[in-house]
Amino acid sequence: MSSALDSSKLKITKTTAPKTKLPNDQLVFGQSFTDHMLTIEWTAESGWGTPEIKPYGNLSLDPSSCVFHYAFELFEGLKAYKDSKGKIRMFRPDMNMKRMNKSAARICLPTFDSEELIKLIGELLKIDGAFIPQERGYSLYIRPTMIGTTAGLGVGTPDRALLFVICSPVGPYYKTGFKAVRLEATDYATRAWPGGVGDKKLGANYAPCIKPQLEAASRGYQQNLWLFGPEKNVTEVGTMNFFVVFQDKATGKKELVTAPLDGTILEGVTRDSILSLARERLDPSEWDVNERYCTITEIASKAESGELVEAFGAGTAAVVSPIKEIGYNGTAINVPLLPGEQSGPLTKQIADWIAELQYGVVESEWSRVVN
Amino acid sequence: MSSALDSSKLKITKTTAPKTKLPNDQLVFGQSFTDHMLTIEWTAESGWGTPEIKPYGNLSLDPSSCVFHYAFELFEGLKAYKDSKGKIRMFRPDMNMKRMNKSAARICLPTFDSEELIKLIGELLKIDGAFIPQERGYSLYIRPTMIGTTAGLGVGTPDRALLFVICSPVGPYYKTGFKAVRLEATDYATRAWPGGVGDKKLGANYAPCIKPQLEAASRGYQQNLWLFGPEKNVTEVGTMNFFVVFQDKATGKKELVTAPLDGTILEGVTRDSILSLARERLDPSEWDVNERYCTITEIASKAESGELVEAFGAGTAAVVSPIKEIGYNGTAINVPLLPGEQSGPLTKQIADWIAELQYGVVESEWSRVVN
Repeated sequence: MSSALDSSKLKITKTTAPKTKLPNDQLVFGQSFTDHMLTIEWTAESGWGTPEIKPYGNLSLDPSSCVFHYAFELFEGLKAYKDSKGKIRMFRPDMNMKRMNKSAARICLPTFDSEELIKLIGELLKIDGAFIPQERGYSLYIRPTMIGTTAGLGVGTPDRALLFVICSPVGPYYKTGFKAVRLEATDYATRAWPGGVGDKKLGANYAPCIKPQLEAASRGYQQNLWLFGPEKNVTEVGTMNFFVVFQDKATGKKELVTAPLDGTILEGVTRDSILSLARERLDPSEWDVNERYCTITEIASKAESGELVEAFGAGTAAVVSPIKEIGYNGTAINVPLLPGEQSGPLTKQIADWIAELQYGVVESEWSRVVN
Repeated sequence: MSSALDSSKLKITKTTAPKTKLPNDQLVFGQSFTDHMLTIEWTAESGWGTPEIKPYGNLSLDPSSCVFHYAFELFEGLKAYKDSKGKIRMFRPDMNMKRMNKSAARICLPTFDSEELIKLIGELLKIDGAFIPQERGYSLYIRPTMIGTTAGLGVGTPDRALLFVICSPVGPYYKTGFKAVRLEATDYATRAWPGGVGDKKLGANYAPCIKPQLEAASRGYQQNLWLFGPEKNVTEVGTMNFFVVFQDKATGKKELVTAPLDGTILEGVTRDSILSLARERLDPSEWDVNERYCTITEIASKAESGELVEAFGAGTAAVVSPIKEIGYNGTAINVPLLPGEQSGPLTKQIADWIAELQYGVVESEWSRVVN
């Protein structure tokens, strides 16, 4: 009889050595963690075990554990915010849980009831609530992770796993407002491909991307703009989804474009939020919002004709990350910014829209209050 | 000042609780381990630390360690044999070390002096020598592994790593001689891609391949035959390199074919050994040995014309693994076997050639005696 994940079984052991909380201005992304972590073991035989909230601490694993050898690992990233009344809010956690289950199924790790894990994360947030900074721009980054813990070197389906959640208080991605970045269009390395796993949040997608990033950095670029195929479609930027804005010279109509979810593109929660908001709130007589293929050649040619008006990356960490230049084939494609500013107008608008929802300034069902 | 890996610094702590050794017939691949393990820590600041041989035991790691989140991990597989005089022999360890360094460089983990690590593994083998079974067909599987241990969720180059080596006594892959397998030609999932990391022995290449393997198994096939591209080139089989033998009906000439090292194919040590031996020992008037692209359509059409004479996988675990059938597009491509046997003649010949070298029956520089 295999047990389902059951939040009512939660066992809590509080720390006896609470950490000193860092002042907001000393927070570095993912470097300091709260007092506690959530862990849940799973076995093929018994299913999900007792969820435990316990002091943050090391994992002890057999060196033959499959997570170390065959990358049985996946993660999520979401944030909790403290609103003006001090209430804790999670932003669209159901989306992250849905994606986490898809990632798990893809590498034969166990799936679970999303709402049960959201409840358990809520309990962790309540216990470590004092670590969530209240200031605007600050939040608690939540990292649910699942690893295969089967000991043994046979390459096969794990029969043991560990789901754990750790939390890191974080500041605004850009300390002093936006800082637009320079990208290197990358075609010699390929982030994801059809029939692969680039649409899932697996550890496997990350380590291989560091070397191309270092190479781009050595030439003065902050990130890679990942191209795909002989057409050189633009797919993602660094570890974010990519958005570009064009404006037709003849009609004046603008188009917000991002790559379609064809199996090579991460199903970003911020991506989804941006598309939804753009479709709801941008005037359709002025805007088209399209999930479609777009090549680096199209971007270069629209830059040439003055029809490239804005570009940005989108993800949980930075929400939106404005782009000012794309290096491609030895030439620079310049992306316009607002005069004297570090972003275009839509990038800024979207950042505001999303922040208002995240901090509960505007109520919406995307923002879940932890009770 | 960053230190190089230095085997002379080795520190040894012997177990006080030696394990009971399993009888040969109870050995399961990668399931039981020897008494000791080798560990070496690395930091960006200090380089390689003190190599330690110590009792086999759990690793204790911060839950934010980059190995758990971004798959900073790579491994090797090689074997040690006991020859008829009781001497311990490693088979081509320099090839594994060279590949391990290439894997490390690809994901920004530290490289090291191959000969130093071979010496250290030699020390581990001497200490755990009693675990190496002497019987023909048995050996000690050695698993060098490197993981990134930087604590923190930023996606970047690890500044801490752990290299460890564990060893598992193993029996013959096929308990009672060869057992030919059935493969499912797989085009809906893609193991590797140009610009990716399929030629490196990274954990990232393994977890994504389990689901397609389970799907093939559900249809009665033991492994996937991975196809690539619109041409449907055959690339690898399961976690092994793929070899096929054709014989021209008109001329009678035979051809041994395997995929070229184009960046999507693992640089197998057994693959290299087979190509070398075939080029040295097969009569060139009767044989061509080619690293070239070969499509599933060519295999199907040569099966049709009676020119498909043999096929096998090649890797460290099984050495060679004969293939009897390939399922493709709902039809079965039958691969001939010797009458009443489970392999073709070349598969058998190669297995014998390699075993003679591995067990030191025939002396060669591929077999290194541990002194």
